[in-house]
Amino acid sequence: MDTMREIGKRIGNLRGSLEREGVDAILLSNPSNLRYLTGNETGRALISKDIAVLWLRELYMDIYSFSREFDVRAEEKDAIRHYIEKSGIKKLAIENIPINLYERRKEEFHIELIPTNIVERLRAVKSGYEIEFLRNSAGIAKKGMNRAKEFIRDGTNELDAVAEIEYTIRKSGSESPPFGEGMLLASGPGGANIHAHAGMKKIREGEIVVVDLGARVKGYYSDMTRTIPVGKPDPLAEEILQFTENLEAEAIDRIHPGITAGEIHDFVNRKIEDRGYKLYHSTGHGVGLDIHELPNIGPKSEDVLQEGMVFTIEPGVYVPKKFGVRFEDMLLLGRNKVEILTG
Amino acid sequence: MDTMREIGKRIGNLRGSLEREGVDAILLSNPSNLRYLTGNETGRALISKDIAVLWLRELYMDIYSFSREFDVRAEEKDAIRHYIEKSGIKKLAIENIPINLYERRKEEFHIELIPTNIVERLRAVKSGYEIEFLRNSAGIAKKGMNRAKEFIRDGTNELDAVAEIEYTIRKSGSESPPFGEGMLLASGPGGANIHAHAGMKKIREGEIVVVDLGARVKGYYSDMTRTIPVGKPDPLAEEILQFTENLEAEAIDRIHPGITAGEIHDFVNRKIEDRGYKLYHSTGHGVGLDIHELPNIGPKSEDVLQEGMVFTIEPGVYVPKKFGVRFEDMLLLGRNKVEILTG
Repeated sequence: MDTMREIGKRIGNLRGSLEREGVDAILLSNPSNLRYLTGNETGRALISKDIAVLWLRELYMDIYSFSREFDVRAEEKDAIRHYIEKSGIKKLAIENIPINLYERRKEEFHIELIPTNIVERLRAVKSGYEIEFLRNSAGIAKKGMNRAKEFIRDGTNELDAVAEIEYTIRKSGSESPPFGEGMLLASGPGGANIHAHAGMKKIREGEIVVVDLGARVKGYYSDMTRTIPVGKPDPLAEEILQFTENLEAEAIDRIHPGITAGEIHDFVNRKIEDRGYKLYHSTGHGVGLDIHELPNIGPKSEDVLQEGMVFTIEPGVYVPKKFGVRFEDMLLLGRNKVEILTG
Repeated sequence: MDTMREIGKRIGNLRGSLEREGVDAILLSNPSNLRYLTGNETGRALISKDIAVLWLRELYMDIYSFSREFDVRAEEKDAIRHYIEKSGIKKLAIENIPINLYERRKEEFHIELIPTNIVERLRAVKSGYEIEFLRNSAGIAKKGMNRAKEFIRDGTNELDAVAEIEYTIRKSGSESPPFGEGMLLASGPGGANIHAHAGMKKIREGEIVVVDLGARVKGYYSDMTRTIPVGKPDPLAEEILQFTENLEAEAIDRIHPGITAGEIHDFVNRKIEDRGYKLYHSTGHGVGLDIHELPNIGPKSEDVLQEGMVFTIEPGVYVPKKFGVRFEDMLLLGRNKVEILTG
């Protein structure tokens, strides 16, 4: 089965990383990391160069199927501690867990715990297998955006538009509504708020509407934004629409394997500042089993863009009390070209 | 304005807690805690007995309105550290943040950092102001559930049902789709998976369908579950449906101010074990600005149920490869009675 072979490869890559980082094993409980390495989002997994053990609730042993790589065991008090002691693990990599859990694990295990993002770094480069899901996910996002363009008119209530667009996305096969908290849709002055959610406001002729949405297919998210004018916006809004859309294209033109993400961000940031505005968020982010993952395309980011990475580019200009403009696409970086998955 | 007066009271309560805990101040960055204490989900807030400062992106200073309690400042490098040094704060309470951030803050501030859940504990007891929103949110959940009961038939595709039900919830005014990842809907054997999301499966005559959904109003979530039979289920399923629904009612009957949450969980757990099954999750959880918050109605929980708390009770029985049953309501604990908000 494809998934199982894919998981086998991922575990192999992870073992390479563990060795390079000089740790004996890694303990995983983050749902996306678990999904990447076990196929399901539950339980706790311990992986070293020799072993791969997954502890989970008994119930799931009957429900899920697992890669043969894993020794699957029922969750039991102290089981992980005993296993770690028995197998002589001294340096254990852990994820970026909350401090309370970290303190509990320190007390429990009595060995060196090393916070790492090894798995997140592996996840940043996608395989052909993953790219198919990301492409399908982006395809559903495009359907949602087409519905947005059809549905948004003078007089449309923001929340009605959101209900309609999310309906399209779900009917098209998305496993979840856009992102965690649903899509973003903000018209007129509301668009100046990066995080604005739709409300009871009616969209009006002459306004521009920021629509930020996505889908999820086999765990893989998608993410895209368009700023949609309703009728003819005022000259400033029109100018900024043009400027931002061009800037996105210019930024994409600069992307190639080997460039650092920070350079791309600096370029976008400088262009926006030259225009007299500020960029209030990162230029982009990786997309995969999480909606925001590596690479981080933000200030000072040293993440190197590599072939196989899938990430967004999303310049935005926000003019308080007036409007906001953002254009965002999800890209696949190939050896010699950038493919716009949401184009 | 109501919200501002409410926030003033909350800050007063928080100051009482800080004093009782023997800390000088608390630093907040969790979106729900920020929303509770500032009215918006962004920025970083520092609150001591004398001061309340909120640092946030310049953009937001023009967009949001804030309680007069706060000295609102633009985010700037080292601003918080300088402020802490200047004001002589020695013991700083922090939230349950990820270790990476914790390590950065330790290096940055050079003072004692004390992880607490002070704000989460305050949030567990709701004011009349909050209860109105929770009630409205529960009302929308009920509309969604009514739509589920209408729409689910022999032959209905799970994902079509989800699209339809979430549409109803959004159209009824929910600020976001149910929970983070959308509603749960699982028919037949899929119901045995606690976390099952809807798929392309068709619902069939004789199956039972677990439907777990909610809404969000002014930040306040709601949460309810019903298990809906399609036609006549087999005798075992029918028996377990009856058993679980009765068990929920029995558990609710036992609730009164002063009882510990662990006692309620033990009662439900014992009843399910006596029947030969296992309870694979907690009996319930608080609901508010987060979908899962205090009180924790789970094993060994010492959280004391108090007047004004809003929480779920949700016994579930899962029979792998056959079906799952769960009934969940959201309750408001009053002095002398339990009100079922989703009833």
